[in-house]
Amino acid sequence: MIKQTAILNQVKEPKITLVGAGPGDADLITLKAIKALKTADVVLYDALVNPELLEFAPEHATRVFVGKRSGEHSYSQDAVNKLMIDYALNYGHVVRLKGGDPFVFGRGFEELDFAASYSIAAEVIPGISSSIAVPGLQGIPVTHRGLSESFWVVTGTTSSGKISPDLFDAAKSRATVVVLMGIKRLADIVEIFKNEGKNRLPVAVIQSGSMKGEKLAIGTVDTIVDAAKDQQIDSPAIIVFGDVVGLHPLFQPIRAFYEYAE
Amino acid sequence: MIKQTAILNQVKEPKITLVGAGPGDADLITLKAIKALKTADVVLYDALVNPELLEFAPEHATRVFVGKRSGEHSYSQDAVNKLMIDYALNYGHVVRLKGGDPFVFGRGFEELDFAASYSIAAEVIPGISSSIAVPGLQGIPVTHRGLSESFWVVTGTTSSGKISPDLFDAAKSRATVVVLMGIKRLADIVEIFKNEGKNRLPVAVIQSGSMKGEKLAIGTVDTIVDAAKDQQIDSPAIIVFGDVVGLHPLFQPIRAFYEYAE
Repeated sequence: MIKQTAILNQVKEPKITLVGAGPGDADLITLKAIKALKTADVVLYDALVNPELLEFAPEHATRVFVGKRSGEHSYSQDAVNKLMIDYALNYGHVVRLKGGDPFVFGRGFEELDFAASYSIAAEVIPGISSSIAVPGLQGIPVTHRGLSESFWVVTGTTSSGKISPDLFDAAKSRATVVVLMGIKRLADIVEIFKNEGKNRLPVAVIQSGSMKGEKLAIGTVDTIVDAAKDQQIDSPAIIVFGDVVGLHPLFQPIRAFYEYAE
Repeated sequence: MIKQTAILNQVKEPKITLVGAGPGDADLITLKAIKALKTADVVLYDALVNPELLEFAPEHATRVFVGKRSGEHSYSQDAVNKLMIDYALNYGHVVRLKGGDPFVFGRGFEELDFAASYSIAAEVIPGISSSIAVPGLQGIPVTHRGLSESFWVVTGTTSSGKISPDLFDAAKSRATVVVLMGIKRLADIVEIFKNEGKNRLPVAVIQSGSMKGEKLAIGTVDTIVDAAKDQQIDSPAIIVFGDVVGLHPLFQPIRAFYEYAE
Protein backbone atom coordinates (compact mmCIF):
# COMPACT_ATOMS: atom_id res chain seq x y z
CA MET A 1 0.00 0.00 0.00
CA ILE A 2 1.07 3.61 -0.65
CA LYS A 3 2.06 5.61 2.41
CA GLN A 4 0.00 8.63 3.33
CA THR A 5 2.61 11.05 1.98
CA ALA A 6 0.07 13.48 0.64
CA ILE A 7 -0.60 14.90 4.08
CA LEU A 8 1.94 17.64 3.45
CA ASN A 9 0.17 18.66 0.28
CA GLN A 10 -3.38 19.79 -0.03
CA VAL A 11 -5.34 16.56 -0.15
CA LYS A 12 -7.76 16.67 -3.03
CA GLU A 13 -11.21 15.15 -3.21
CA PRO A 14 -10.72 11.55 -4.38
CA LYS A 15 -12.24 10.88 -7.79
CA ILE A 16 -11.93 8.11 -10.36
CA THR A 17 -12.60 8.43 -14.08
CA LEU A 18 -12.68 5.29 -16.22
CA VAL A 19 -11.62 6.42 -19.65
CA GLY A 20 -11.76 4.53 -22.92
CA ALA A 21 -8.56 5.19 -24.85
CA GLY A 22 -9.81 3.78 -28.14
CA PRO A 23 -8.24 1.14 -30.38
CA GLY A 24 -4.67 2.49 -30.53
CA ASP A 25 -4.38 5.52 -32.83
CA ALA A 26 -3.85 8.41 -30.37
CA ASP A 27 -6.14 10.60 -32.49
CA LEU A 28 -9.04 8.26 -31.76
CA ILE A 29 -9.29 9.60 -28.22
CA THR A 30 -12.29 11.81 -27.39
CA LEU A 31 -12.21 15.43 -26.29
CA LYS A 32 -13.91 14.37 -23.08
CA ALA A 33 -11.10 11.92 -22.36
CA ILE A 34 -8.48 14.59 -23.02
CA LYS A 35 -10.23 16.94 -20.59
CA ALA A 36 -10.21 14.22 -17.93
CA LEU A 37 -6.52 13.49 -18.53
CA LYS A 38 -5.68 17.19 -18.18
CA THR A 39 -7.00 17.17 -14.62
CA ALA A 40 -5.45 13.83 -13.64
CA ASP A 41 -3.20 13.47 -10.62
CA VAL A 42 -2.57 9.82 -11.44
CA VAL A 43 -3.02 7.84 -14.65
CA LEU A 44 -3.27 4.06 -14.43
CA TYR A 45 -2.94 2.69 -17.94
CA ASP A 46 -3.19 -0.65 -19.69
CA ALA A 47 -0.93 -2.40 -22.17
CA LEU A 48 -3.08 -1.59 -25.20
CA VAL A 49 -3.21 2.13 -24.47
CA ASN A 50 -1.16 4.38 -26.76
CA PRO A 51 1.53 5.93 -24.49
CA GLU A 52 1.28 9.22 -26.46
CA LEU A 53 -1.99 9.80 -24.63
CA LEU A 54 -0.12 10.15 -21.33
CA GLU A 55 1.22 13.46 -22.62
CA PHE A 56 -2.21 15.01 -22.08
CA ALA A 57 -1.81 14.55 -18.32
CA PRO A 58 -0.15 17.36 -16.35
CA GLU A 59 3.57 17.08 -15.69
CA HIS A 60 3.04 16.45 -11.99
CA ALA A 61 0.74 13.50 -12.64
CA THR A 62 1.98 10.04 -11.68
CA ARG A 63 1.83 7.55 -14.54
CA VAL A 64 1.49 3.89 -13.60
CA PHE A 65 1.53 1.03 -16.07
CA VAL A 66 -0.80 -1.74 -14.90
CA GLY A 67 -0.68 -3.61 -18.17
CA LYS A 68 -2.18 -6.97 -18.79
CA ARG A 69 -2.20 -8.89 -22.00
CA SER A 70 -3.92 -12.18 -22.61
CA GLY A 71 -1.65 -14.76 -21.05
CA GLU A 72 0.62 -12.44 -19.07
CA HIS A 73 -0.93 -10.82 -16.04
CA SER A 74 1.44 -8.28 -14.54
CA TYR A 75 -1.20 -6.97 -12.13
CA SER A 76 -4.25 -8.88 -10.96
CA GLN A 77 -7.58 -7.10 -11.31
CA ASP A 78 -7.68 -7.04 -7.54
CA ALA A 79 -4.32 -5.29 -7.36
CA VAL A 80 -5.40 -2.70 -9.95
CA ASN A 81 -8.60 -2.02 -8.02
CA LYS A 82 -6.67 -1.44 -4.81
CA LEU A 83 -4.05 0.76 -6.47
CA MET A 84 -6.82 2.87 -7.96
CA ILE A 85 -8.41 3.45 -4.54
CA ASP A 86 -5.07 4.12 -2.81
CA TYR A 87 -4.07 6.67 -5.40
CA ALA A 88 -7.47 8.37 -5.33
CA LEU A 89 -7.40 8.68 -1.53
CA ASN A 90 -3.82 9.96 -1.52
CA TYR A 91 -3.53 12.01 -4.68
CA GLY A 92 -7.03 12.97 -5.84
CA HIS A 93 -8.12 12.41 -9.42
CA VAL A 94 -7.23 9.01 -10.83
CA VAL A 95 -7.77 8.46 -14.54
CA ARG A 96 -8.04 4.77 -15.27
CA LEU A 97 -7.10 4.66 -18.95
CA LYS A 98 -8.25 1.47 -20.66
CA GLY A 99 -7.91 0.24 -24.23
CA GLY A 100 -11.03 0.53 -26.39
CA ASP A 101 -14.19 1.11 -24.36
CA PRO A 102 -14.13 0.41 -20.61
CA PHE A 103 -17.26 -1.74 -20.78
CA VAL A 104 -16.38 -3.95 -23.74
CA PHE A 105 -14.64 -6.85 -22.01
CA GLY A 106 -12.71 -4.22 -20.06
CA ARG A 107 -13.87 -5.25 -16.58
CA GLY A 108 -14.77 -1.60 -16.20
CA PHE A 109 -17.83 -2.29 -14.11
CA GLU A 110 -15.76 -4.16 -11.52
CA GLU A 111 -13.59 -1.06 -11.11
CA LEU A 112 -16.64 1.21 -10.94
CA ASP A 113 -18.19 -1.07 -8.36
CA PHE A 114 -14.98 -1.17 -6.32
CA ALA A 115 -14.82 2.65 -6.31
CA ALA A 116 -18.46 2.77 -5.17
CA SER A 117 -17.69 0.39 -2.29
CA TYR A 118 -15.28 3.06 -1.01
CA SER A 119 -17.82 5.82 -1.73
CA ILE A 120 -15.40 7.40 -4.18
CA ALA A 121 -17.05 9.40 -6.95
CA ALA A 122 -16.54 7.64 -10.27
CA GLU A 123 -17.38 8.52 -13.84
CA VAL A 124 -17.16 6.65 -17.14
CA ILE A 125 -16.00 8.15 -20.43
CA PRO A 126 -16.74 5.82 -23.33
CA GLY A 127 -14.04 5.03 -25.87
CA ILE A 128 -13.95 3.98 -29.48
CA SER A 129 -14.33 0.19 -29.39
CA SER A 130 -12.09 -1.78 -31.69
CA SER A 131 -15.03 -4.13 -32.30
CA ILE A 132 -16.62 -1.54 -34.59
CA ALA A 133 -13.74 0.79 -35.46
CA VAL A 134 -11.05 -1.67 -36.49
CA PRO A 135 -13.12 -3.30 -39.23
CA GLY A 136 -14.48 0.18 -40.07
CA LEU A 137 -11.02 1.62 -40.66
CA GLN A 138 -10.46 -1.21 -43.15
CA GLY A 139 -13.65 -0.20 -44.94
CA ILE A 140 -15.56 -3.16 -43.52
CA PRO A 141 -18.93 -2.03 -42.12
CA VAL A 142 -20.33 -4.15 -39.27
CA THR A 143 -23.78 -3.54 -40.75
CA HIS A 144 -24.81 -3.03 -44.37
CA ARG A 145 -28.22 -3.12 -46.03
CA GLY A 146 -28.91 -6.45 -47.64
CA LEU A 147 -25.93 -8.10 -45.93
CA SER A 148 -26.27 -7.60 -42.19
CA GLU A 149 -28.95 -6.15 -39.93
CA SER A 150 -26.97 -6.73 -36.74
CA PHE A 151 -23.57 -7.41 -35.26
CA TRP A 152 -22.61 -9.61 -32.33
CA VAL A 153 -19.44 -8.99 -30.36
CA VAL A 154 -18.08 -11.98 -28.43
CA THR A 155 -14.95 -12.58 -26.41
CA GLY A 156 -12.68 -15.38 -27.57
CA THR A 157 -11.17 -15.80 -24.12
CA THR A 158 -13.54 -16.24 -21.21
CA SER A 159 -12.47 -16.13 -17.57
CA SER A 160 -12.55 -19.95 -17.48
CA GLY A 161 -10.29 -20.19 -20.54
CA LYS A 162 -13.00 -21.93 -22.56
CA ILE A 163 -14.59 -20.65 -25.74
CA SER A 164 -17.79 -18.82 -24.81
CA PRO A 165 -20.99 -20.76 -25.49
CA ASP A 166 -22.23 -17.50 -27.02
CA LEU A 167 -19.81 -18.03 -29.88
CA PHE A 168 -21.53 -21.30 -30.80
CA ASP A 169 -24.84 -19.41 -31.02
CA ALA A 170 -23.23 -16.52 -32.88
CA ALA A 171 -21.93 -18.94 -35.53
CA LYS A 172 -25.52 -20.04 -36.18
CA SER A 173 -26.79 -16.45 -36.54
CA ARG A 174 -27.04 -14.05 -39.48
CA ALA A 175 -25.22 -11.37 -37.47
CA THR A 176 -21.79 -10.05 -38.35
CA VAL A 177 -19.73 -11.77 -35.64
CA VAL A 178 -16.79 -9.87 -34.17
CA VAL A 179 -14.49 -11.87 -31.88
CA LEU A 180 -12.16 -9.96 -29.58
CA MET A 181 -9.20 -11.63 -27.85
CA GLY A 182 -9.70 -14.78 -29.91
CA ILE A 183 -6.70 -14.87 -32.22
CA LYS A 184 -4.83 -17.51 -30.20
CA ARG A 185 -7.86 -19.78 -30.66
CA LEU A 186 -8.47 -18.94 -34.32
CA ALA A 187 -8.36 -22.57 -35.48
CA ASP A 188 -10.84 -23.68 -32.80
CA ILE A 189 -13.15 -20.75 -33.48
CA VAL A 190 -13.12 -21.36 -37.22
CA GLU A 191 -14.10 -24.99 -36.53
CA ILE A 192 -17.34 -23.79 -34.92
CA PHE A 193 -18.30 -21.99 -38.14
CA LYS A 194 -17.33 -25.04 -40.23
CA ASN A 195 -19.69 -27.14 -38.12
CA GLU A 196 -22.46 -24.79 -39.21
CA GLY A 197 -21.57 -25.38 -42.85
CA LYS A 198 -20.33 -21.81 -43.26
CA ASN A 199 -17.08 -22.81 -44.97
CA ARG A 200 -17.26 -19.99 -47.50
CA LEU A 201 -18.31 -17.22 -45.16
CA PRO A 202 -15.88 -14.28 -45.56
CA VAL A 203 -13.55 -13.70 -42.60
CA ALA A 204 -11.10 -10.91 -41.76
CA VAL A 205 -8.37 -10.97 -39.14
CA ILE A 206 -6.89 -7.59 -38.21
CA GLN A 207 -3.90 -7.11 -35.93
CA SER A 208 -3.03 -3.76 -34.31
CA GLY A 209 -5.93 -2.06 -36.02
CA SER A 210 -5.59 1.76 -36.39
CA MET A 211 -1.87 1.58 -35.50
CA LYS A 212 1.33 1.55 -37.47
CA GLY A 213 2.16 -2.06 -38.16
CA GLU A 214 -1.49 -2.91 -38.76
CA LYS A 215 -1.88 -6.30 -40.46
CA LEU A 216 -4.84 -7.69 -42.33
CA ALA A 217 -5.73 -11.15 -43.56
CA ILE A 218 -8.85 -11.82 -45.59
CA GLY A 219 -10.21 -15.24 -46.43
CA THR A 220 -13.08 -17.57 -45.82
CA VAL A 221 -13.82 -19.85 -42.89
CA ASP A 222 -11.94 -22.53 -44.83
CA THR A 223 -8.87 -20.43 -45.64
CA ILE A 224 -8.47 -17.83 -42.89
CA VAL A 225 -6.14 -19.89 -40.68
CA ASP A 226 -3.61 -20.14 -43.50
CA ALA A 227 -4.17 -16.52 -44.57
CA ALA A 228 -3.50 -15.32 -41.01
CA LYS A 229 -0.34 -17.45 -40.88
CA ASP A 230 0.84 -15.99 -44.20
CA GLN A 231 0.47 -12.49 -42.77
CA GLN A 232 2.12 -13.61 -39.50
CA ILE A 233 -0.78 -12.23 -37.53
CA ASP A 234 -0.53 -12.39 -33.77
CA SER A 235 -2.20 -10.86 -30.73
CA PRO A 236 -3.75 -8.26 -30.35
CA ALA A 237 -6.10 -8.99 -33.21
CA ILE A 238 -9.80 -9.12 -33.89
CA ILE A 239 -11.70 -11.58 -36.07
CA VAL A 240 -14.71 -10.59 -38.17
CA PHE A 241 -17.05 -13.20 -39.67
CA GLY A 242 -19.73 -12.11 -42.11
CA ASP A 243 -20.80 -11.27 -45.62
CA VAL A 244 -19.79 -7.66 -44.94
CA VAL A 245 -16.16 -8.82 -45.11
CA GLY A 246 -16.88 -9.72 -48.72
CA LEU A 247 -17.14 -5.98 -49.47
CA HIS A 248 -13.37 -5.61 -48.96
CA PRO A 249 -11.38 -5.38 -52.23
CA LEU A 250 -9.10 -8.23 -51.09
CA PHE A 251 -12.10 -10.55 -51.09
CA GLN A 252 -12.75 -10.04 -54.81
CA PRO A 253 -10.12 -12.54 -56.04
CA ILE A 254 -11.37 -15.08 -53.49
CA ARG A 255 -14.91 -14.70 -54.80
CA ALA A 256 -13.65 -15.00 -58.36
CA PHE A 257 -11.73 -18.16 -57.47
CA TYR A 258 -14.80 -19.83 -55.96
CA GLU A 259 -16.91 -18.82 -58.97
CA TYR A 260 -14.28 -20.21 -61.33
CA ALA A 261 -14.06 -23.44 -59.35
CA GLU A 262 -17.77 -24.09 -59.68
CA MET B 1 -27.04 19.85 -59.35
CA ILE B 2 -24.59 22.54 -58.27
CA LYS B 3 -23.16 24.68 -61.03
CA GLN B 4 -19.42 24.57 -61.65
CA THR B 5 -18.91 27.92 -59.91
CA ALA B 6 -15.60 26.91 -58.41
CA ILE B 7 -13.78 27.49 -61.68
CA LEU B 8 -12.88 31.00 -60.58
CA ASN B 9 -11.37 29.68 -57.37
CA GLN B 10 -8.55 27.24 -57.12
CA VAL B 11 -10.26 23.88 -57.46
CA LYS B 12 -9.08 21.58 -54.73
CA GLU B 13 -8.58 17.85 -54.95
CA PRO B 14 -11.97 16.29 -54.18
CA LYS B 15 -11.99 14.26 -51.00
CA ILE B 16 -14.67 12.77 -48.76
CA THR B 17 -14.30 11.92 -45.09
CA LEU B 18 -17.08 9.98 -43.36
CA VAL B 19 -16.90 11.02 -39.75
CA GLY B 20 -18.67 9.52 -36.74
CA ALA B 21 -19.90 12.36 -34.53
CA GLY B 22 -20.68 10.16 -31.53
CA PRO B 23 -23.90 9.88 -29.53
CA GLY B 24 -24.62 13.58 -28.99
CA ASP B 25 -22.35 15.10 -26.31
CA ALA B 26 -20.02 17.32 -28.35
CA ASP B 27 -17.10 16.24 -26.14
CA LEU B 28 -17.52 12.68 -27.36
CA ILE B 29 -16.00 13.59 -30.71
CA THR B 30 -12.51 12.26 -31.46
CA LEU B 31 -9.40 14.31 -32.10
CA LYS B 32 -9.19 12.73 -35.53
CA ALA B 33 -12.70 13.95 -36.35
CA ILE B 34 -11.84 17.47 -35.19
CA LYS B 35 -8.76 17.47 -37.44
CA ALA B 36 -10.90 16.43 -40.40
CA LEU B 37 -13.49 19.12 -39.64
CA LYS B 38 -10.75 21.76 -39.48
CA THR B 39 -9.85 21.08 -43.10
CA ALA B 40 -13.42 20.81 -44.36
CA ASP B 41 -14.70 22.90 -47.23
CA VAL B 42 -18.19 21.48 -46.83
CA VAL B 43 -19.86 19.68 -43.93
CA LEU B 44 -22.92 17.55 -44.63
CA TYR B 45 -24.50 16.69 -41.29
CA ASP B 46 -27.32 14.55 -39.98
CA ALA B 47 -30.16 15.28 -37.58
CA LEU B 48 -28.56 13.50 -34.64
CA VAL B 49 -25.27 15.38 -34.91
CA ASN B 50 -24.60 17.99 -32.24
CA PRO B 51 -24.53 21.36 -34.10
CA GLU B 52 -21.73 22.58 -31.78
CA LEU B 53 -19.41 20.31 -33.75
CA LEU B 54 -19.87 22.50 -36.83
CA GLU B 55 -17.83 25.18 -35.06
CA PHE B 56 -14.70 23.13 -35.65
CA ALA B 57 -15.04 23.69 -39.40
CA PRO B 58 -13.38 26.79 -40.90
CA GLU B 59 -15.52 29.88 -41.32
CA HIS B 60 -15.52 29.57 -45.10
CA ALA B 61 -16.88 26.02 -44.97
CA THR B 62 -20.40 25.42 -46.24
CA ARG B 63 -22.63 23.66 -43.73
CA VAL B 64 -25.49 21.61 -45.13
CA PHE B 65 -28.13 19.88 -43.04
CA VAL B 66 -29.17 16.61 -44.70
CA GLY B 67 -31.05 15.34 -41.67
CA LYS B 68 -33.16 12.28 -41.58
CA ARG B 69 -35.00 10.86 -38.66
CA SER B 70 -36.88 7.60 -38.59
CA GLY B 71 -40.16 8.35 -40.28
CA GLU B 72 -39.28 11.71 -41.80
CA HIS B 73 -36.90 11.68 -44.72
CA SER B 74 -35.90 15.17 -45.72
CA TYR B 75 -33.24 13.93 -48.13
CA SER B 76 -33.17 10.50 -49.71
CA GLN B 77 -29.93 8.54 -49.38
CA ASP B 78 -29.56 8.95 -53.11
CA ALA B 79 -29.82 12.72 -52.85
CA VAL B 80 -27.24 12.82 -50.04
CA ASN B 81 -24.86 10.68 -52.09
CA LYS B 82 -25.16 13.01 -55.05
CA LEU B 83 -24.78 16.18 -52.96
CA MET B 84 -21.64 14.71 -51.43
CA ILE B 85 -20.09 14.09 -54.85
CA ASP B 86 -21.14 17.47 -56.24
CA TYR B 87 -19.67 19.32 -53.30
CA ALA B 88 -16.44 17.31 -53.39
CA LEU B 89 -15.96 18.01 -57.11
CA ASN B 90 -16.74 21.70 -56.73
CA TYR B 91 -15.37 22.60 -53.33
CA GLY B 92 -12.79 20.01 -52.30
CA HIS B 93 -12.94 18.33 -48.91
CA VAL B 94 -16.39 17.17 -47.86
CA VAL B 95 -16.83 15.97 -44.28
CA ARG B 96 -19.89 13.76 -44.04
CA LEU B 97 -20.72 14.05 -40.35
CA LYS B 98 -22.94 11.24 -39.13
CA GLY B 99 -24.40 10.44 -35.70
CA GLY B 100 -22.68 7.67 -33.75
CA ASP B 101 -20.39 5.53 -35.91
CA PRO B 102 -20.76 5.69 -39.71
CA PHE B 103 -20.96 1.89 -40.03
CA VAL B 104 -23.49 1.15 -37.30
CA PHE B 105 -26.75 1.35 -39.26
CA GLY B 106 -25.40 4.58 -40.72
CA ARG B 107 -25.42 3.49 -44.36
CA GLY B 108 -21.83 4.66 -44.37
CA PHE B 109 -20.67 1.96 -46.73
CA GLU B 110 -23.16 3.07 -49.38
CA GLU B 111 -21.64 6.56 -49.26
CA LEU B 112 -18.12 5.16 -49.35
CA ASP B 113 -19.06 3.00 -52.31
CA PHE B 114 -20.68 5.91 -54.11
CA ALA B 115 -17.52 8.01 -53.64
CA ALA B 116 -15.44 5.12 -55.01
CA SER B 117 -17.66 4.92 -58.08
CA TYR B 118 -16.57 8.50 -58.86
CA SER B 119 -12.94 7.68 -58.01
CA ILE B 120 -13.04 10.23 -55.21
CA ALA B 121 -10.66 9.50 -52.34
CA ALA B 122 -12.64 8.63 -49.23
CA GLU B 123 -11.70 7.91 -45.64
CA VAL B 124 -13.64 6.74 -42.59
CA ILE B 125 -13.20 8.09 -39.07
CA PRO B 126 -14.98 5.91 -36.53
CA GLY B 127 -17.24 7.49 -33.93
CA ILE B 128 -18.44 6.57 -30.46
CA SER B 129 -21.44 4.34 -31.06
CA SER B 130 -24.46 4.94 -28.87
CA SER B 131 -24.96 1.16 -28.76
CA ILE B 132 -22.08 0.85 -26.27
CA ALA B 133 -21.66 4.39 -24.94
CA VAL B 134 -25.23 5.29 -24.04
CA PRO B 135 -25.72 2.35 -21.66
CA GLY B 136 -22.11 2.88 -20.49
CA LEU B 137 -22.74 6.48 -19.50
CA GLN B 138 -25.61 5.20 -17.34
CA GLY B 139 -23.20 2.78 -15.67
CA ILE B 140 -24.62 -0.19 -17.57
CA PRO B 141 -21.80 -2.29 -19.06
CA VAL B 142 -22.67 -4.21 -22.23
CA THR B 143 -20.46 -7.03 -20.92
CA HIS B 144 -19.72 -8.08 -17.35
CA ARG B 145 -18.15 -11.24 -15.96
CA GLY B 146 -20.73 -13.71 -14.81
CA LEU B 147 -23.57 -11.83 -16.52
CA SER B 148 -22.71 -11.39 -20.18
CA GLU B 149 -19.92 -12.65 -22.42
CA SER B 150 -21.21 -10.88 -25.51
CA PHE B 151 -23.47 -8.15 -26.84
CA TRP B 152 -25.64 -8.11 -29.92
CA VAL B 153 -26.63 -4.85 -31.59
CA VAL B 154 -29.75 -4.99 -33.78
CA THR B 155 -31.76 -2.39 -35.63
CA GLY B 156 -35.41 -2.06 -34.67
CA THR B 157 -36.30 -0.55 -38.04
CA THR B 158 -35.23 -2.42 -41.15
CA SER B 159 -35.43 -1.02 -44.65
CA SER B 160 -38.63 -3.04 -45.22
CA GLY B 161 -40.24 -1.62 -42.05
CA LYS B 162 -40.44 -5.07 -40.47
CA ILE B 163 -38.74 -6.13 -37.27
CA SER B 164 -35.46 -7.81 -38.17
CA PRO B 165 -35.49 -11.60 -37.95
CA ASP B 166 -32.17 -11.17 -36.13
CA LEU B 167 -34.08 -9.74 -33.19
CA PHE B 168 -36.03 -13.00 -32.81
CA ASP B 169 -32.72 -14.87 -32.58
CA ALA B 170 -31.23 -12.25 -30.28
CA ALA B 171 -34.14 -12.70 -27.87
CA LYS B 172 -33.24 -16.39 -27.62
CA SER B 173 -29.56 -15.68 -26.89
CA ARG B 174 -27.59 -15.04 -23.70
CA ALA B 175 -26.12 -11.87 -25.22
CA THR B 176 -26.86 -8.38 -23.97
CA VAL B 177 -29.20 -7.18 -26.73
CA VAL B 178 -29.03 -3.51 -27.75
CA VAL B 179 -31.77 -2.30 -30.10
CA LEU B 180 -31.22 0.94 -31.99
CA MET B 181 -34.06 2.81 -33.70
CA GLY B 182 -36.61 0.51 -32.07
CA ILE B 183 -38.40 2.74 -29.59
CA LYS B 184 -41.49 3.22 -31.80
CA ARG B 185 -41.87 -0.57 -31.84
CA LEU B 186 -41.09 -1.12 -28.15
CA ALA B 187 -44.31 -3.03 -27.42
CA ASP B 188 -43.78 -5.38 -30.39
CA ILE B 189 -40.12 -5.92 -29.51
CA VAL B 190 -40.92 -6.68 -25.89
CA GLU B 191 -43.44 -9.27 -27.10
CA ILE B 192 -40.61 -11.21 -28.75
CA PHE B 193 -38.80 -11.51 -25.41
CA LYS B 194 -42.05 -12.52 -23.67
CA ASN B 195 -42.46 -15.32 -26.17
CA GLU B 196 -39.08 -16.60 -24.99
CA GLY B 197 -40.33 -16.59 -21.40
CA LYS B 198 -37.96 -13.77 -20.47
CA ASN B 199 -40.61 -11.74 -18.66
CA ARG B 200 -38.30 -10.76 -15.82
CA LEU B 201 -35.24 -9.93 -17.88
CA PRO B 202 -34.05 -6.42 -16.96
CA VAL B 203 -34.56 -3.76 -19.66
CA ALA B 204 -33.42 -0.15 -19.96
CA VAL B 205 -34.69 2.46 -22.38
CA ILE B 206 -32.55 5.56 -22.78
CA GLN B 207 -33.54 8.64 -24.77
CA SER B 208 -31.06 11.32 -25.89
CA GLY B 209 -28.22 9.49 -24.18
CA SER B 210 -25.17 11.68 -23.35
CA MET B 211 -27.21 14.86 -23.98
CA LYS B 212 -29.04 17.34 -21.79
CA GLY B 213 -32.59 16.10 -21.50
CA GLU B 214 -31.44 12.48 -21.28
CA LYS B 215 -34.23 10.22 -20.04
CA LEU B 216 -34.00 6.75 -18.57
CA ALA B 217 -36.56 4.07 -17.85
CA ILE B 218 -35.64 0.83 -16.14
CA GLY B 219 -37.89 -2.18 -15.83
CA THR B 220 -38.32 -5.75 -16.90
CA VAL B 221 -39.66 -7.19 -20.14
CA ASP B 222 -43.07 -7.20 -18.42
CA THR B 223 -42.96 -3.62 -17.15
CA ILE B 224 -40.75 -1.60 -19.52
CA VAL B 225 -43.56 -0.41 -21.81
CA ASP B 226 -45.30 1.27 -18.87
CA ALA B 227 -42.01 2.51 -17.41
CA ALA B 228 -41.09 4.14 -20.73
CA LYS B 229 -44.54 5.75 -20.91
CA ASP B 230 -44.16 7.09 -17.36
CA GLN B 231 -40.89 8.73 -18.35
CA GLN B 232 -42.47 9.97 -21.62
CA ILE B 233 -39.65 8.46 -23.60
CA ASP B 234 -39.64 9.06 -27.32
CA SER B 235 -37.26 8.80 -30.27
CA PRO B 236 -34.23 8.87 -30.42
CA ALA B 237 -33.81 6.14 -27.84
CA ILE B 238 -32.03 2.85 -27.44
CA ILE B 239 -33.28 -0.30 -25.73
CA VAL B 240 -31.01 -2.61 -23.73
CA PHE B 241 -32.10 -6.11 -22.73
CA GLY B 242 -29.95 -8.14 -20.38
CA ASP B 243 -28.92 -9.05 -16.86
CA VAL B 244 -26.33 -6.25 -17.02
CA VAL B 245 -29.22 -3.78 -16.74
CA GLY B 246 -29.85 -5.31 -13.32
CA LEU B 247 -26.60 -3.70 -12.15
CA HIS B 248 -28.22 -0.25 -12.33
CA PRO B 249 -29.29 1.16 -8.95
CA LEU B 250 -32.83 1.78 -10.25
CA PHE B 251 -33.21 -1.95 -10.74
CA GLN B 252 -32.70 -2.73 -7.05
CA PRO B 253 -36.29 -1.91 -5.95
CA ILE B 254 -37.61 -3.96 -8.88
CA ARG B 255 -35.53 -6.94 -7.79
CA ALA B 256 -36.69 -6.45 -4.22
CA PHE B 257 -40.31 -6.34 -5.37
CA TYR B 258 -40.02 -9.62 -7.26
CA GLU B 259 -38.27 -11.24 -4.32
CA TYR B 260 -40.98 -10.02 -1.97
CA ALA B 261 -43.71 -11.26 -4.30
CA GLU B 262 -42.32 -14.78 -4.35
